[in-house]
Amino acid sequence: MATESDADPGVRSVLRALDLLALFDEHNQRRTIRELTDASGLAKTTVLRLVGTLEHRGLLWTRPDGRIAVGPGLLRWAGLARTAWRVPEAIRQVMRELVAETAETAHLYVRSDAARVCVAQEEGPHALRHIVNVGDEFPLWAGAAAKVLLADGDDALFRRVAAASPHGARHAETLREQAGRARGDGHAVSHGERETGVSGVAAPVFDSGGRVQAAIALGGPTARFTPEAVTEFTAATVRAGRRISDIGLDHGERP
Amino acid sequence: MATESDADPGVRSVLRALDLLALFDEHNQRRTIRELTDASGLAKTTVLRLVGTLEHRGLLWTRPDGRIAVGPGLLRWAGLARTAWRVPEAIRQVMRELVAETAETAHLYVRSDAARVCVAQEEGPHALRHIVNVGDEFPLWAGAAAKVLLADGDDALFRRVAAASPHGARHAETLREQAGRARGDGHAVSHGERETGVSGVAAPVFDSGGRVQAAIALGGPTARFTPEAVTEFTAATVRAGRRISDIGLDHGERP
Repeated sequence: MATESDADPGVRSVLRALDLLALFDEHNQRRTIRELTDASGLAKTTVLRLVGTLEHRGLLWTRPDGRIAVGPGLLRWAGLARTAWRVPEAIRQVMRELVAETAETAHLYVRSDAARVCVAQEEGPHALRHIVNVGDEFPLWAGAAAKVLLADGDDALFRRVAAASPHGARHAETLREQAGRARGDGHAVSHGERETGVSGVAAPVFDSGGRVQAAIALGGPTARFTPEAVTEFTAATVRAGRRISDIGLDHGERP
Repeated sequence: MATESDADPGVRSVLRALDLLALFDEHNQRRTIRELTDASGLAKTTVLRLVGTLEHRGLLWTRPDGRIAVGPGLLRWAGLARTAWRVPEAIRQVMRELVAETAETAHLYVRSDAARVCVAQEEGPHALRHIVNVGDEFPLWAGAAAKVLLADGDDALFRRVAAASPHGARHAETLREQAGRARGDGHAVSHGERETGVSGVAAPVFDSGGRVQAAIALGGPTARFTPEAVTEFTAATVRAGRRISDIGLDHGERP
């Protein structure tokens, strides 16, 4: 939710408006003003004003039954996001080969503030597989990809990620240690950190300046991520990360 | 651009932030702060503050070269927009049949404030065809679909659409007349209003309450939109509009 302590009322309004939009997802495509008020913790007058503003730009619209839904203005951003974040075919090929080698589902994540966002997925062959939709956001306080993406994090980021975690503020120190270890090892592993029974292995993708730009990750049921498998998965994921770094994930460079 | 006369500074900031986002499109995927300042007419400090806020939510990000690009946070909205605005297969089938009958490209538009947004397209067979991407926004001061979508417009809307047109404020009266004629006729035709050499025919799609909810349109080169062809296209488009109204374009009702 919005940073209420932010001194700038304009910035606060923008954050609140974006937070209202974030209350809509595939399972909540229509919301009443009451629901938006309850979920946001904002005053009803504030919600009405912000909904009106978002409606004015076509991002929300009021249905004939009075409920609020996602507006057609979002379609323009959908096209823009798809174009800007289209993962090159050469990188998709590396991901497919990683899946062929390990039989687990591969994901490519980038950091977006204190979250990670899936920008590509190649599904594995098992019926029991770890499915993430492109565009899905996850917190950075858990998961192998998170540790890799936090490699270049600063103290303020660790504090914010920890504050949003169920482990509280003291988790910042743990996050820093995990990120340092992932940086030193060149990979990270997780077992059931965010979701019980789900394991992951991740390796960094570097930009031309040597900064971590993304994380390539394998995810699947912990039962299949045995110590032997993890060793094999790690080697394959690190190799895939190097190949993707060489190709270059230079988002938005394509016309 | 933002309604500068708006008295509420919070609303103004939200509109300004959304206007900054709107400066990014497929041809302008990366922008310098200078470009954003010039294009928005906002003070550099305002642009920097808003970019920072949007970056904080992952909607923009600053690239290593200092330019601003669309952020991964937009991907979440892309998925949401696609789900919410997925056009039912039965409506797609009507559009395909309209294309088969007329050999022109069919579009489905909805109104989003003072613009129309393409929510579906079925391409015609001719090499010279009128291509619009789903999510593309067009003004309401031109085009057959605009006249149909303005059928339920009020004076304030006509004034705003006219103000944004190259014809100036006096165009409001013309728009009102055109909308009234489209409502009476049950269809509208345009030749080269927005783009020279492009013609269109459009008919309304009604919601269950009898309000205009969308416009089904054919678009193509004026050379093919002869009077005889327009008569035939109009009949086919009006029939398609009735069939789509019967099916119901109830966005966001599907799970």
